[in-house]
Amino acid sequence: MVTLQGEASDPANQNWLPCSNVTITNPLITDSSNLILRLEMGDPKLFVPYWKMMSDKCSVVIEGWKFMSHESDASNVCQYLLPELGDAIKRIHSLVHNAAIQDKHIIVGTGSTQLFHAAWFALSSSDSVRPINIVSAAPFYSLYLDGVKALRSGLYQWAGDAATYDKDEPYIEMVTSQNNPVVRSASQGKLIHDLAYYWPQYTPITHHADHDLMLFTFSKCTGHAGSRIGWAIVKDIEVAKKMVHFIQVSTIGVSKESQIRAAKILGVVCDSYQSLGPKGSEHFFDYGKRLLRERWHRMRQVIGQCEVFTVAKPSSAYCNFTKESFETNSAFAWVKCVGGIEDCGTYLKNLGILARPGRLFGVGPEFARISMLSTNDEFDELLTRLLNARREYN
Amino acid sequence: MVTLQGEASDPANQNWLPCSNVTITNPLITDSSNLILRLEMGDPKLFVPYWKMMSDKCSVVIEGWKFMSHESDASNVCQYLLPELGDAIKRIHSLVHNAAIQDKHIIVGTGSTQLFHAAWFALSSSDSVRPINIVSAAPFYSLYLDGVKALRSGLYQWAGDAATYDKDEPYIEMVTSQNNPVVRSASQGKLIHDLAYYWPQYTPITHHADHDLMLFTFSKCTGHAGSRIGWAIVKDIEVAKKMVHFIQVSTIGVSKESQIRAAKILGVVCDSYQSLGPKGSEHFFDYGKRLLRERWHRMRQVIGQCEVFTVAKPSSAYCNFTKESFETNSAFAWVKCVGGIEDCGTYLKNLGILARPGRLFGVGPEFARISMLSTNDEFDELLTRLLNARREYN
Repeated sequence: MVTLQGEASDPANQNWLPCSNVTITNPLITDSSNLILRLEMGDPKLFVPYWKMMSDKCSVVIEGWKFMSHESDASNVCQYLLPELGDAIKRIHSLVHNAAIQDKHIIVGTGSTQLFHAAWFALSSSDSVRPINIVSAAPFYSLYLDGVKALRSGLYQWAGDAATYDKDEPYIEMVTSQNNPVVRSASQGKLIHDLAYYWPQYTPITHHADHDLMLFTFSKCTGHAGSRIGWAIVKDIEVAKKMVHFIQVSTIGVSKESQIRAAKILGVVCDSYQSLGPKGSEHFFDYGKRLLRERWHRMRQVIGQCEVFTVAKPSSAYCNFTKESFETNSAFAWVKCVGGIEDCGTYLKNLGILARPGRLFGVGPEFARISMLSTNDEFDELLTRLLNARREYN
Repeated sequence: MVTLQGEASDPANQNWLPCSNVTITNPLITDSSNLILRLEMGDPKLFVPYWKMMSDKCSVVIEGWKFMSHESDASNVCQYLLPELGDAIKRIHSLVHNAAIQDKHIIVGTGSTQLFHAAWFALSSSDSVRPINIVSAAPFYSLYLDGVKALRSGLYQWAGDAATYDKDEPYIEMVTSQNNPVVRSASQGKLIHDLAYYWPQYTPITHHADHDLMLFTFSKCTGHAGSRIGWAIVKDIEVAKKMVHFIQVSTIGVSKESQIRAAKILGVVCDSYQSLGPKGSEHFFDYGKRLLRERWHRMRQVIGQCEVFTVAKPSSAYCNFTKESFETNSAFAWVKCVGGIEDCGTYLKNLGILARPGRLFGVGPEFARISMLSTNDEFDELLTRLLNARREYN
């Protein structure tokens, strides 16, 4: 099973790596800084060096009079979508072959965050007296819960872990892996597939995802989180129209500057694989995969030396894009404290590591989520602190 | 009284220009196109020629590796705000002297639309059993009503025209002119001042607005609607924090590309007035005011010839920024059909003019709102069609 956004597979049901005394060939024990390592968010800083390397190929120049209207193409279901971005989205999916896009509608959003709100809005009924239930398999992406709870919509409400959902009522399930909706009584269910991490640097591309409502984000695809660009691929035109209406009333569209830059950068990624770009530089997904694989290798070595933490054993599959089998390089490490430590988040905090505690994702306090996407320096420091934890613990 | 967003002063209570036979020195009767004139939105296209003229001074270049994080300044209450934009916002208010910003918090949003949602969220209570009432004086900005109704929040609800609000319950009033909250029993009221149009091209700057929660938008300030940048100026830090939390759960921040471009363009406007920019070109607000004044002059001439429409007589005041008295050059014309025509919106539609009907703003069907911010060609065509209407009507 390949898992994606927020690592949807339940860590409690995984095979956990045993704590052994693996020797680290290049130990990372350095002077610890007093700074807090902020690894609770998934800001994908590890890709910055790649884009520095490619900088001159990816620059966009925006003149003062460009993109002044909030609309882009009045004839499109999503009138806010810049045609250049629509084309780039089609091109990248056609390259990676991770999503079936033909005869579907592309809706641009201010990040995929705005789009899951738009999707909840579109899939709930304004006529219904009762709000529709939203579920997701734990550990679910914490912002689903935060979003639903904060806004107190009369249209939808949070109904918790999909694994324990047993109501005979309509529901929306947020599916964060490619093919595993959890609720069994699917007759009343509407599915939203959040495929934020279904890109070949993170996970093998095992099949061409073809669902009614799929969400992607530029943030996780290339690492440009500051642009706040997401896109939904939507089969039903009425659902698409309702999503666009949501974007209309909540932000009247999506930044044009971000859209044109996303189009440019996605285009550069495609050019590179299609031998249209400059020769000699590593392709983006290969670079990302290599970096994440190296990080996971080092992470497992450090965790393997500990008596404090474990991490789940990764799954492996054949990737149709890279034409090889590889283990999932998750964007987040779900670490589990063992040996009597009850609150993993607090324990990590005491080590100067800010992780997101398991309870925010619907799992126990023995779990915490650590970003694997930090800068190189932050990642080195993380490993140092984890190694030191073992020493202090002993 | 100076009115702003969506022309808040009630057109039903205005002095309407009599329909006289003013001669137009330069009649605009040309061949009508079959195209629908879309003047229902306020897309500020009239400023495009100015920014074309200034284009090389306003270009921004964004390299591939820049602005990759969604955060900007973790130490700021609004961690998403780029310091460059924060500085430019302070600078433009200090230049125009239209808002007191000292000791207040600046919150950036995806347009001011996201910010009024954030403000409703921040000013309502999550503990309250009943949603708080939101009111605004008719004709209110139609997106207030659309936004509240569509999202069906449990936190707040639409309570209609502020002029007729008489409940003894807490409420939030959207104030769209500088100084005229309408509800009298203000003890339970919280005010949001939407000052989108409080810039000297539209209206005399009569005083330094100093309210608890003020909203502005780049869209109406310089005409860059495609960037979706708005800002709130907030006195109370707890309200500011709640607004930022809303932005976190709804879009995890605001486009960096748009922010850096807004900073650049606001900076160019300030440079020009402070003699730091290139010599010889007209200053932006002077250009905008001249253009709008010319348009209103022509509009009134055409309306003055008709037996079909009237428009409200404009108010006049001394402007502290331009150091002269002038009549308000509203961004929208509220036209009123007379002579037995009951539905102004439909009448205009039959002329090929898409206007927003009065009922969406809480006023009667005899009113409709027409954007004055279209392109020059569209504006010429508008006048032609209005003149032809008179002929057809006769």
